[in-house]
Amino acid sequence: MSDKLLITNVSVARMGGSDSPYDLLHNAALLIDGARIAWVGPMSQVAPDWADIPRIDGDGRLLSPGLIDCHTHLVHGGDRAREFEMRLNGASYQEVARAGGGIVSTVRDTRAASEETLLADALRRADALIAEGATTLEIKSGYGLDVETELKMLRVARAVAMHRPIRVCTSFLGAHATPPEYKGRDDAYIDEVCIPALRAAHEAGLADAVDGFCEGIAFSPDQMARVFDVARELGLPVKLHAEQLSNLGGAAMAAGYGAMSADHIEYLDTDGVRALAEAGSVGVLLPGAFYTLHETQAPPVQALRDHGVPMALATDLNPGSSPLNSLLLTMNMGCTLFRLTPEEALRGTTVNAARALGLHDCGVIAPGMRADLALWDVSEPAELSYRIGFNPLHRRIFGGQA
Amino acid sequence: MSDKLLITNVSVARMGGSDSPYDLLHNAALLIDGARIAWVGPMSQVAPDWADIPRIDGDGRLLSPGLIDCHTHLVHGGDRAREFEMRLNGASYQEVARAGGGIVSTVRDTRAASEETLLADALRRADALIAEGATTLEIKSGYGLDVETELKMLRVARAVAMHRPIRVCTSFLGAHATPPEYKGRDDAYIDEVCIPALRAAHEAGLADAVDGFCEGIAFSPDQMARVFDVARELGLPVKLHAEQLSNLGGAAMAAGYGAMSADHIEYLDTDGVRALAEAGSVGVLLPGAFYTLHETQAPPVQALRDHGVPMALATDLNPGSSPLNSLLLTMNMGCTLFRLTPEEALRGTTVNAARALGLHDCGVIAPGMRADLALWDVSEPAELSYRIGFNPLHRRIFGGQA
Ligand SMILES: [Zn+2]
Ligand SMILES: [Zn+2]
Repeated sequence: MSDKLLITNVSVARMGGSDSPYDLLHNAALLIDGARIAWVGPMSQVAPDWADIPRIDGDGRLLSPGLIDCHTHLVHGGDRAREFEMRLNGASYQEVARAGGGIVSTVRDTRAASEETLLADALRRADALIAEGATTLEIKSGYGLDVETELKMLRVARAVAMHRPIRVCTSFLGAHATPPEYKGRDDAYIDEVCIPALRAAHEAGLADAVDGFCEGIAFSPDQMARVFDVARELGLPVKLHAEQLSNLGGAAMAAGYGAMSADHIEYLDTDGVRALAEAGSVGVLLPGAFYTLHETQAPPVQALRDHGVPMALATDLNPGSSPLNSLLLTMNMGCTLFRLTPEEALRGTTVNAARALGLHDCGVIAPGMRADLALWDVSEPAELSYRIGFNPLHRRIFGGQA
Repeated sequence: MSDKLLITNVSVARMGGSDSPYDLLHNAALLIDGARIAWVGPMSQVAPDWADIPRIDGDGRLLSPGLIDCHTHLVHGGDRAREFEMRLNGASYQEVARAGGGIVSTVRDTRAASEETLLADALRRADALIAEGATTLEIKSGYGLDVETELKMLRVARAVAMHRPIRVCTSFLGAHATPPEYKGRDDAYIDEVCIPALRAAHEAGLADAVDGFCEGIAFSPDQMARVFDVARELGLPVKLHAEQLSNLGGAAMAAGYGAMSADHIEYLDTDGVRALAEAGSVGVLLPGAFYTLHETQAPPVQALRDHGVPMALATDLNPGSSPLNSLLLTMNMGCTLFRLTPEEALRGTTVNAARALGLHDCGVIAPGMRADLALWDVSEPAELSYRIGFNPLHRRIFGGQA
């Protein structure tokens, strides 16, 4: 029984390093062997003795790497629709807080939810991303804020990849907020909960990376550095929510730990851009939060380009500041709100998103890479970013399985 | 054979005139007889002798009127993805124009396309709206700008309703732009093409309403009035793209013709709001164009509320300024960009959208109304506007057909 598959008559957006836009190959074919790409090239080079290999006729469609969402809070309890409604009906932040809203409500709902409920809700959200061609998701903890619930969230994240044909990378985000029981005692929370939870998550094999929220309303660079010191000790890569609402120098601090990425970075200054460039860190742009929070300061896209910092795009899917459940829409927002080009948008959800997750076997189409692919009913790649709220996915291939 | 259907265990957002938000009825049931709603009320009043009627157990889901998109340019040739990409790569408007972009390119592609191609493309877009619970669409002409192609577009719009379980209202939009062959001769275009095309469309039964684009870059209120005079003579209701980029007083002019709606209206002033209120016209808000064009002036939502002008929300689905193919996303944009409440957003795509189309038999859930319904996997109606790029439709019912 052959485990080969041939895809013919496609344009292939390989997303590699060539000078041509999208590293695009017209009138091309691709050979899958098992879970890997064996060959990609022009139709004219399809070998005659491949005639017996099962094939998908692409009929002129576009083939791209499967999409990668490199920043999500996809596992969480409850939703914040009522809070959304209260605010739009004129409630103040205090009134919302008195009514039990804000991140505290998500922490409460996540702690209260069973693993089964968390998983069922997470799978609905994952299914919507998969339906748009996603093949890899990052999922963070960070709504438990106690040892038990942080681990529960990460177990659910792992379970998503067991219940669906999708790859999941987990990030431990104990340093997301200080829970009510530690109000005003951020340092004690870091020492007594966050770091012990990180060690426990690592011990259980649940954390692929360590993340944090570095902001005036969350943790300082010094506090985050204490968490990152433990990550380094454990051999875990780091990343950081940084410079979203103000410039605290978090991105540069994270770059000092060789961060895989700095995320949000609306307020990143030139020194911060340079620090990311030197560390080889990816700048992860999150237009869904920018849109939802009515932010006006866009990230320094031109400076990131000038310094060669790779840019990724992600949903930031979370119940408060970005209930955004679509990577295609994220790409449109990246173009419309941040003025990325459609090519940068597609690099941002493929090759650069893979890099932001430290993955070297996906995100581009080349021999040896995982056969994680998306076949689209479009004639050119810009259409993926151009349309708003339209899904042209024809079919998805995950690890060679169509 | 019974043509009755009972839907049990639902929350019903009736969207009628009661004081309760969404006119919501919890723990309710709904009886369909043929294509109409026969009864809606509490579960406790479900009659024992309805036991033999086929039923759908809603299992606590939300039932709303089917969604109505009251402003689309869904029928058009080609797309403008390349232009989108050129602009984001820094091309000037002149360069885009030299490369054949802009509305002229859509006119060229629409004229060149066969009716079959136009229909196939339109059905893909309609299918995406239907998948989100839409049961009625408005579709405009306006990319033909010659008699033959304007009629071709309207025939395709009618054909959408023959090929899919959806209701279509057509609008003649000959006064959308002046075609290249009439450049600088707007009045001649109105007299020699637009008005003859309108008469021909009416003669062929293809126009349910008459629309126009009243703007500095399109037609003046006086020019539009000449078209509306003919509409009045033919007994056709009118509507207008007005006050999108500047305040020309188009909405007030249209209100003078008893317009069903004035659409866009970002620059509408208080006199204009009053004129709409007195005429009973609906203000149709189009956040997709606002978002795509990076506009900063939002429509006068508070003034519209204060004067009791009903607000609708629509996609404005078109290849240039709003390639937005999702009513749910439109609702989120209405809340996020224009600060509508989630209830206003749902009224905007149900009861007020029906009113903007002059329809009296849909948009609310009440006995005698068409059984055009959407059953959603959400627990409260605000969730429909809260999520971004997520479709919680469980099933759709069109004219009583589940
Ligand atoms: Zn985040
Ligand atoms: Zn329009």
